[in-house]
Amino acid sequence: MSKKNRTKPGTSPGTLIFTGNKKLSEPNVTLVQYDEADYIERHEKNHLPSLRPGRFLNWYDIRGLHQINLIEQIGKQFNIHQLALEDVLDTQQRPKFEEYDNGIFITIQALTYDPEQIELKTEQISIFSGQKVVVSFQEDENELFIPIRERISASKGRIRRRGADYLTYALLDLIVDNYFLILDQVEDSIEQLEVNIVQKQDNNYKNNIHQLKIVILKLKKIISPLREAVSQFSRCDENHLDSETSVFVRDLYDHIIQLIDMVDTYRDIITGLQELYLAEISLRMNNVMQVLTIISTIFIPLTFLVGVYGMNFDTMPELHWSWSYYALWAVMLALVLFMVHYFKRKKWL
Amino acid sequence: MSKKNRTKPGTSPGTLIFTGNKKLSEPNVTLVQYDEADYIERHEKNHLPSLRPGRFLNWYDIRGLHQINLIEQIGKQFNIHQLALEDVLDTQQRPKFEEYDNGIFITIQALTYDPEQIELKTEQISIFSGQKVVVSFQEDENELFIPIRERISASKGRIRRRGADYLTYALLDLIVDNYFLILDQVEDSIEQLEVNIVQKQDNNYKNNIHQLKIVILKLKKIISPLREAVSQFSRCDENHLDSETSVFVRDLYDHIIQLIDMVDTYRDIITGLQELYLAEISLRMNNVMQVLTIISTIFIPLTFLVGVYGMNFDTMPELHWSWSYYALWAVMLALVLFMVHYFKRKKWL
Amino acid sequence: MSKKNRTKPGTSPGTLIFTGNKKLSEPNVTLVQYDEADYIERHEKNHLPSLRPGRFLNWYDIRGLHQINLIEQIGKQFNIHQLALEDVLDTQQRPKFEEYDNGIFITIQALTYDPEQIELKTEQISIFSGQKVVVSFQEDENELFIPIRERISASKGRIRRRGADYLTYALLDLIVDNYFLILDQVEDSIEQLEVNIVQKQDNNYKNNIHQLKIVILKLKKIISPLREAVSQFSRCDENHLDSETSVFVRDLYDHIIQLIDMVDTYRDIITGLQELYLAEISLRMNNVMQVLTIISTIFIPLTFLVGVYGMNFDTMPELHWSWSYYALWAVMLALVLFMVHYFKRKKWL
Amino acid sequence: MSKKNRTKPGTSPGTLIFTGNKKLSEPNVTLVQYDEADYIERHEKNHLPSLRPGRFLNWYDIRGLHQINLIEQIGKQFNIHQLALEDVLDTQQRPKFEEYDNGIFITIQALTYDPEQIELKTEQISIFSGQKVVVSFQEDENELFIPIRERISASKGRIRRRGADYLTYALLDLIVDNYFLILDQVEDSIEQLEVNIVQKQDNNYKNNIHQLKIVILKLKKIISPLREAVSQFSRCDENHLDSETSVFVRDLYDHIIQLIDMVDTYRDIITGLQELYLAEISLRMNNVMQVLTIISTIFIPLTFLVGVYGMNFDTMPELHWSWSYYALWAVMLALVLFMVHYFKRKKWL
Amino acid sequence: MSKKNRTKPGTSPGTLIFTGNKKLSEPNVTLVQYDEADYIERHEKNHLPSLRPGRFLNWYDIRGLHQINLIEQIGKQFNIHQLALEDVLDTQQRPKFEEYDNGIFITIQALTYDPEQIELKTEQISIFSGQKVVVSFQEDENELFIPIRERISASKGRIRRRGADYLTYALLDLIVDNYFLILDQVEDSIEQLEVNIVQKQDNNYKNNIHQLKIVILKLKKIISPLREAVSQFSRCDENHLDSETSVFVRDLYDHIIQLIDMVDTYRDIITGLQELYLAEISLRMNNVMQVLTIISTIFIPLTFLVGVYGMNFDTMPELHWSWSYYALWAVMLALVLFMVHYFKRKKWL
Repeated sequence: MSKKNRTKPGTSPGTLIFTGNKKLSEPNVTLVQYDEADYIERHEKNHLPSLRPGRFLNWYDIRGLHQINLIEQIGKQFNIHQLALEDVLDTQQRPKFEEYDNGIFITIQALTYDPEQIELKTEQISIFSGQKVVVSFQEDENELFIPIRERISASKGRIRRRGADYLTYALLDLIVDNYFLILDQVEDSIEQLEVNIVQKQDNNYKNNIHQLKIVILKLKKIISPLREAVSQFSRCDENHLDSETSVFVRDLYDHIIQLIDMVDTYRDIITGLQELYLAEISLRMNNVMQVLTIISTIFIPLTFLVGVYGMNFDTMPELHWSWSYYALWAVMLALVLFMVHYFKRKKWL
Repeated sequence: MSKKNRTKPGTSPGTLIFTGNKKLSEPNVTLVQYDEADYIERHEKNHLPSLRPGRFLNWYDIRGLHQINLIEQIGKQFNIHQLALEDVLDTQQRPKFEEYDNGIFITIQALTYDPEQIELKTEQISIFSGQKVVVSFQEDENELFIPIRERISASKGRIRRRGADYLTYALLDLIVDNYFLILDQVEDSIEQLEVNIVQKQDNNYKNNIHQLKIVILKLKKIISPLREAVSQFSRCDENHLDSETSVFVRDLYDHIIQLIDMVDTYRDIITGLQELYLAEISLRMNNVMQVLTIISTIFIPLTFLVGVYGMNFDTMPELHWSWSYYALWAVMLALVLFMVHYFKRKKWL
Repeated sequence: MSKKNRTKPGTSPGTLIFTGNKKLSEPNVTLVQYDEADYIERHEKNHLPSLRPGRFLNWYDIRGLHQINLIEQIGKQFNIHQLALEDVLDTQQRPKFEEYDNGIFITIQALTYDPEQIELKTEQISIFSGQKVVVSFQEDENELFIPIRERISASKGRIRRRGADYLTYALLDLIVDNYFLILDQVEDSIEQLEVNIVQKQDNNYKNNIHQLKIVILKLKKIISPLREAVSQFSRCDENHLDSETSVFVRDLYDHIIQLIDMVDTYRDIITGLQELYLAEISLRMNNVMQVLTIISTIFIPLTFLVGVYGMNFDTMPELHWSWSYYALWAVMLALVLFMVHYFKRKKWL
Repeated sequence: MSKKNRTKPGTSPGTLIFTGNKKLSEPNVTLVQYDEADYIERHEKNHLPSLRPGRFLNWYDIRGLHQINLIEQIGKQFNIHQLALEDVLDTQQRPKFEEYDNGIFITIQALTYDPEQIELKTEQISIFSGQKVVVSFQEDENELFIPIRERISASKGRIRRRGADYLTYALLDLIVDNYFLILDQVEDSIEQLEVNIVQKQDNNYKNNIHQLKIVILKLKKIISPLREAVSQFSRCDENHLDSETSVFVRDLYDHIIQLIDMVDTYRDIITGLQELYLAEISLRMNNVMQVLTIISTIFIPLTFLVGVYGMNFDTMPELHWSWSYYALWAVMLALVLFMVHYFKRKKWL
Repeated sequence: MSKKNRTKPGTSPGTLIFTGNKKLSEPNVTLVQYDEADYIERHEKNHLPSLRPGRFLNWYDIRGLHQINLIEQIGKQFNIHQLALEDVLDTQQRPKFEEYDNGIFITIQALTYDPEQIELKTEQISIFSGQKVVVSFQEDENELFIPIRERISASKGRIRRRGADYLTYALLDLIVDNYFLILDQVEDSIEQLEVNIVQKQDNNYKNNIHQLKIVILKLKKIISPLREAVSQFSRCDENHLDSETSVFVRDLYDHIIQLIDMVDTYRDIITGLQELYLAEISLRMNNVMQVLTIISTIFIPLTFLVGVYGMNFDTMPELHWSWSYYALWAVMLALVLFMVHYFKRKKWL
């Protein structure tokens, strides 16, 4: 859980305040313009390339959000609602979908997972999709959407023929597909932990278990609200979602349901692992106690016996019999054998 | 959980009885009157400034509820329903929203958090919003709404142009924005506790865990019903909520959903912390037992051996061999080495 | 959980069988007749005062249910459905609401709490409300409804002007208001227990925790179904519930929601207390083990050392050096100091 | 959980296969024919008495299901759907309700409880109710429905006047009323267990707790689906359920809700009991450890001391002082007193 | 949890990629063509037998999915939606139902259970059912559907008269019937585990419990979504599901509800077993500690006593009394008897 820069309570709603903590030197803006025939790609720094009107679909990929005036300029140019812009800048948003008259607005969290630290990093992606224009906002310069750009430039397929709604879907689909990879890595962490606990290579996994739990909670918090958001997307106005594309959005919805199922299953498994670990500790304590008990139970009576014949009473007839020392050894040996037999029957040995 | 002064069962419903426990000497009344052009602010004690009819929006900020007759006077003047007035005075109300013919009525709990005592304090705020009038009720003199007053007097922006519904929204928004700060502080407490448990600086965190649980339960109890209340607000009659303002109320609703998510996550984390702590105790017990077992297992057999040669039998040939004392030391040393090896293999050392 | 006298399976449904276990000598019947102008109160034993037709609202308060023929007579006179009468007599009913053509029927459990025994006692109240008549049934002679009677006779207010529906509401409201007092007492028990556990005054609270759990389960079982019952009441036919009264019933509904919230919170707190108590036991065990381990770890090696020099070998050169006894004491002291230092570092001392 | 004889996967649905395990020599068939005036009862073995057409209501009570051809004959005669017949023979059906054009079909589990073994036995009852005919199927020869038969033959009341729907209701009501008796017995088992755990008469209740849990799970599995089934019954077509009878079916529905509540409560109580038992074990372990620690802490230092003066050093001046033996006793006594005081302060004694 | 071959994020949706891991040398294709009169069966390898138009119902049973071009050919021939084909190849699909204009598409997981390893293996079956054609896809060559093929060729019953919807139902029914057998085997594993835990034959069941939990989680994940899928099937368009067949699909739905119930019950039972096992470990630890405590408590004081008379003080009068050695034995015996009595009273012996 990273600290947030909260908006000060009492500031006017819709006030644009950047709450993230990664600052590039300058925001990067990539403008991709394409139709079935042509494909143009332009890269700018902290400056908005002008929109060419007409047949092209324009995709602005904004990376870096700390230049408020750039964001405001974008908002003005494409007529994005003030509250949506505020959500773009508040980088700890719950995933959500909003429909406005002139377009739709979606926020989603892109994920990276560090299996060493068992830590999940999020980066908020906001997408505004309007008439022949898509604007995607992203906090840092990591070029997440290169595969999409390549697909557009390479193929003349579906993505080149369809509109802003399909591009929006494709961006979401890329992020959601990535969730599956993240979940596979989390699953690897879980399995590794399970193997470690069962094979007792080391003995302190409680922190790992706790951190995995936090990761899974975070995943749940990020993926669960997507269900509602994508469901709203799939049911939104025909102006904003073509019926042909909506089949794909429903497919995306199915993927999210599957992700939620997986996260729930992982959660149950990690709970099970914790119980396994606690049972493991208890069993190990049992073993420790058994060793102690066996040793004590065998030697304490023997120590008593040898103590008896270390006493200095004047009258202790046994001390003077020539065979008594050997007899005592025999008695003690018998005692040990009896004990060993007893522990064997109790399955402690 | 603070003790409440309950209304005596059997008293007529709508009977005004103050159930809080903080009594100022005199209630404070601040009247803020404004429109786009002008802004007037008046402060009174235990007395209701008269309403100037006409173009102004009138906001009465009442602080101190123990003067029943003042409350009754307000109720009569603005025609507030008797049951709503009863709710104003019953300071342990569940957050709720009521719509009446002449206006809307909302109760909400303002929060302060004491990280030292891990304790949450609530103060009930009730807001009645009617035609060109907003009345806010608050138990103590803490001037919670100063930021709003400053925003109104400073800017000529949205808040000056819009009506009672927007002011009501702004008041609620202030309180809900404050919840985020409170939750961040609670998160700090949780993280501090987690660090402490993992690094074992001290050894008794069970009370802290329990108190944090109580705090989170209380948060849940206060924030959960807001979901329904704000949802009703967002869907209420057009007379009471302008469609332009309702976008903002829906945004408020989203914030509350996010808060509920956060509280649920904290709850799961604190449960996880408790399990971490119990595992910690078990592991520590394990370590204690291992030390005991190692010491006992090494020395109990040795003590037996030296006991044997402390016996006073007449016939103990070993006692008379000149090298036997040194041989015994060698045997005991071998035993110790064997034990140490055994414990190393068992990973107890 | 008190034993019930069950109806024998196979008996015809609607057969009137009294399943309670408190039997007064004779049932008490109080008839209260009033309108805005007059108020008449009559007390009878095991006999039904005749109904005066006309302007009065008639409230029969029946205390004592074991005289089946009295109940049958009442049923016949006011045309109460046979299954409703059966429910009156089956004193372990789940709270419920039924609407019939000629009136409404409600069962609810009145509560008393014994903080010493941590025990909840229930008494079933059934209310039939028809045209200008209300019949309330109660198992024992405890005059629960005196405050209502006093309010009616004293004031000429709302309760005197309104009809059977309002009186029914007032009776329910009295019982529900009483729930708040009960819950406050339960909360006191919980807090007392919490203080005891944390301050370790005594050491066996597991039974108290268990009994409080049972109490809270019982509360949940009694209060939860009321939600549905009162909701049905608030939505029932206009003949049976005046629109002006229905505002009050909705207020009652809000109270019940608040009660359910409280019970849920208590339940979570008591679960937390139990975990606190178990952590307490574990910690205490830890302390016991630490004491044992410290003592054993210090003295077992020392005992071994003194055992060594108690041996009777002919050749033990150390025994004959004049300073060796004092040297041994020095070695043992050093060992003790080292151990104490080790335990201090481990924070066991 | 008894083993089932499953239908082989891949067999055609509707294939009649008996999956129960109790086989009478021959199925018993009792035909009860009645109207308001007359009552006729006939008993047959493995043979279907012919249906007398006309005014009578015909109730076939079939006990014993292993004669597939008898079941087929019944199915053909009353035109019962093949899938319903399959359900009759599959004796581990989930309780359910089906409506067909010519009648309704219900399966329900009759229960018996063995408090000694803490074991629940089920017997599946299937009821087909058509036009003037009711067929009830039961696995073994236990005459469960005698009370109903007696009520019909004895009284000329409601059951004689009403149709097949009322008889079906009466059969269900008998079984459901019996559930209350079963639950009371289970409650007795729970209370007995609670008393035993608290009073520690013996020390191994974990199996009893586990078995009670299994019983309650089984009860839940049997009673929960009844809610839906009886709800469907109460809402079914007017041809199959008279409006006058449907009041009774709704009452039955209320009973089932109450049963579900009870089972849920028992489940929570048994969970509580288990936690009580685990706390009990922990406390007992604590006591054992305290005894060990007290004994060890008192005697280990003393044993060390007497060991010191058992050493054979030439130079041990204390050995030669005449009062030193007595002084040692004094020191040891002082040590014991100090320890006892210490343990008293720690409340271990 | 087997590793999956995920589709690379960013690939175009609908791209056909096989994600399974079992590769036959060549896919097997069985074409079954039948109507009421005739039955033809053809077997091919990696080649699609041509469809004979007209009166026959054609069932293509495809085993082996790694030949993408075969799958594409099938998709083209029967006009199966690209996203459905993608689901066929992604062998870790959540069970689901899709309705297209020209048919319906279902994925379901066939199960096998290995009781030795407590492991569940899944194999994905996809079924496309269109106009007079059914295509079933399966990953490996295991001929799962032989019983259906035999039923078709053997009988001239229902399955020969009805259409593609009934065949689809029959295939699903076979798989679901098989679930019951799997659940019975899982139940056997649970019961075996329960017997083992209670009878303590061995002492490490925590891994078995954990694996059974994983199996049950997996079952839940596979069976739960079927509820929704089969419900959609039962409510789908009349073109795709005949009303006569829909009775059977509803019956299938009932079976799935029953399966979900069973899985939930098993889950609760396995949770109960785990608690039983933990209680077992605690009790065993208690026993170990009791043995240790009994031995220590008896012998430590005795060892002290004999230590006393092993001291070498010059002045120890008792040493010189002739009867004192025997007296000491008497005292020690008395002490032992007292201890044994004390432990008997504490029920430790």
